[in-house]
Amino acid sequence: MIRFAALGIDHRHIFGMAANLLAEGADFAGYWTDGTPETLAGFTKRFPNVSRCDKAALLADPDIDLILISAVPADRADLAIAAMRSGKDVMSDKPGCTTLAQLDAIRAAQEETGRIWSIDFSERFEVPAMTRAAELVAEGAIGRVVQTTGLGPHRLNAATRPDWFFDRARYGGILTDIGSHQIDQFLFLTGSTDATVLRAYVANYANPIHPGLQDFGEIVLQSGDAHGYIRVDWYTPDALPTWGDGRLTILGTEGYIELRKYIDVGGTKGTDHLILVNGARCEKVDASDAGLPYFARLIDDIRNRTETAMPQAHTYKAMELAIRAQMLAEGTT
Amino acid sequence: MIRFAALGIDHRHIFGMAANLLAEGADFAGYWTDGTPETLAGFTKRFPNVSRCDKAALLADPDIDLILISAVPADRADLAIAAMRSGKDVMSDKPGCTTLAQLDAIRAAQEETGRIWSIDFSERFEVPAMTRAAELVAEGAIGRVVQTTGLGPHRLNAATRPDWFFDRARYGGILTDIGSHQIDQFLFLTGSTDATVLRAYVANYANPIHPGLQDFGEIVLQSGDAHGYIRVDWYTPDALPTWGDGRLTILGTEGYIELRKYIDVGGTKGTDHLILVNGARCEKVDASDAGLPYFARLIDDIRNRTETAMPQAHTYKAMELAIRAQMLAEGTT
Repeated sequence: MIRFAALGIDHRHIFGMAANLLAEGADFAGYWTDGTPETLAGFTKRFPNVSRCDKAALLADPDIDLILISAVPADRADLAIAAMRSGKDVMSDKPGCTTLAQLDAIRAAQEETGRIWSIDFSERFEVPAMTRAAELVAEGAIGRVVQTTGLGPHRLNAATRPDWFFDRARYGGILTDIGSHQIDQFLFLTGSTDATVLRAYVANYANPIHPGLQDFGEIVLQSGDAHGYIRVDWYTPDALPTWGDGRLTILGTEGYIELRKYIDVGGTKGTDHLILVNGARCEKVDASDAGLPYFARLIDDIRNRTETAMPQAHTYKAMELAIRAQMLAEGTT
Repeated sequence: MIRFAALGIDHRHIFGMAANLLAEGADFAGYWTDGTPETLAGFTKRFPNVSRCDKAALLADPDIDLILISAVPADRADLAIAAMRSGKDVMSDKPGCTTLAQLDAIRAAQEETGRIWSIDFSERFEVPAMTRAAELVAEGAIGRVVQTTGLGPHRLNAATRPDWFFDRARYGGILTDIGSHQIDQFLFLTGSTDATVLRAYVANYANPIHPGLQDFGEIVLQSGDAHGYIRVDWYTPDALPTWGDGRLTILGTEGYIELRKYIDVGGTKGTDHLILVNGARCEKVDASDAGLPYFARLIDDIRNRTETAMPQAHTYKAMELAIRAQMLAEGTT
C-alpha cells in the first residue's frame, strides 16, 4: 500500500484528503506545516498517531509515495515542485496554485519528473452525488450536456479565519480559490478539454471591514456548444446547518440533473440529493452511496503510472482557467 | 367594475390573463382573433359565454376599458397601438412586441394617449411564490439582493405548436419571448430601472428539423451592483408532469431565496415552493396562498390612472432589454 505525508495543513481540506486516502488503506507517514495554523488542534485530534516531521526529511524519505499539500494557496506551487523533484506524486488542495507563473513552473517540473500533480477538487471528488451524476451523464441519461449552472455559496466564519484568508495575494482570489471547483465540474461534465472565459467578475459587497476579501464572484464559460455559469459567494447565512447550499444543475438535450450536494432545505435529510428528470424518470435519488472513486483511482495511478483519477491535462486546464478568470475579473489581463 | 375584451388568442396565456381578471370581478365583453388558432377550442370551452366579435366593434365600444392581447407576438404591437388610440388600456401577453421599432411606436402611442401598456409577465404575476418572495425581499429578509439566477425551462410540445411558433420573425426569438419573463424578474427583484446586457446567446441544439426555433438561450445582466444570469430552453422532458421546472434563486448579502415555482420533484406536492435561508430561518415555505396582486392593482390603475401594478417605465425597459439581448445574441446590433 502507498504511504503519504502532508506538507502544510493550513486549510481544513487536509482532513478529507487524508481521511479518504486512509479509508483506501494508505498509510499516513507524517506531516510538516509552517507555524501554528488554526487547523492544528483539529488535525492532531483527528490524526493522533501522525507525527510532525522535518519537511526535508519527509521529502527525502524513499518510502513516501505521495505528498498532500494544503498549505496557504500561494505557497502550494513551491511545495508541489519540491515534492515532484523529490520523486513524489502530489495531491494538492484547491487551488493548486495562484498565478500562471506558478502553474508554468509546476507543469515544467511535472513534465520533467513524470510525477502526478493532482488536485482534490473536493466539491467533485468528495461528493457521492457527483459520482452518480457523472455516471448518469456518461450513460446518456440526459442526452448531450448543453449547460451547467454551478452555485457555490460558502460560509465566511470570519472570526475563525487566519489572516491569509483575507489577503488576496495569499489566497489567490475568489475565482482562483472556490471558483476552480466549479470550473473543474464544468469541464468534466461537458467533456471539455478547453473553454473560453467570456465573463468574470469579483466584488466585495458585504464585508467592507475585510477589504482583501472578495465575497462574490461569477464566471461565464463556453466550450464549443457547452455553456457554463458559475456563481460563488461567502454569504451563507447563520441558520443554514451546513457550510453551504451547493447546487449544480446539469441541462441536457433530453433531461436534466440537479444536485443538492450538502443539504435539502425543508426536504429530505442528509446529503447528496440528486434530482433526475428525463423522458422516463422524474425523481429524487439518494446518491449518498455512490462512492468516491477518485481516491482509489489515484492510488492505482501512483502504482501504475496511469491517469484514471483525473487526466493531468484537465488539472492544468482547470487551474489555468480559474486563474485567467480571476485576472479577467481584476483587469490584469 | 371594468370590462375587457381580447384581441388575439393565439397563445394559451390568454386563459390566465382573462381568468385572473374575471376572478377580480371584471367583465369579459368579447373577443376577436385572426383565423382559427389552436387555442380556439379550449378558449370557447373555458369561456362559453364570451362571443367572438368584430375587432373594430370591440375597439369602438365605449364600455370596454381594457384590451387583452395574446395574438402572434409580431402582431401585438399594432393591436396595442390600435387599442390605445381607441382609448383603451392594454394588458399584453409577453413579449409585448418583437422589435425596437415596434417598442418605439408603442411608447409614442402610450405617451400620446396616456393609456396603460402593461405586460402580464405570467412567470411573475401568475406565481404566488413570486408574490411572497417579493414581500420577503422588500422586508429585507435576505439583505441587499446581489444576484438572481433564473432558469426557465419549457416543454416544446412541437406537435401541437402552430407554424408561427417556429418562425423567428413571428415569435421574436427565445430571448425576446421567454427570456423577457426573466429580465422582468431580474429588474424587479434587484430594484433596477436599467441594466446592461453583458452576454446573450441563442442556439438550436436539439431541434434541427425546426430551423427557425431557438431551443437554448442565455443572458448575463448587470445593473450597478446587481447581477443576473438567465437560462431558458425548450428541453423539458416528457416525464416531468408539468410544462417546466422553473427556478429562481435570489442571492442576498444576508440570505437567499429559492423558488421552485411549478413543481418540487421528489419533494412536496403542489406548486409555489419557496426556500428561505437567512440568519434566523432555514425552511421551505408553502407560498401558494400569497395571492396575485397584479390583477387587482391593474384594475385600480385603470380606474385611478396610477402605476401600482407595474411602472410603465419598467414595462418598456424589460421589453427593450429582451429585444436588445436577442439582437446581441444574433449579431444584429
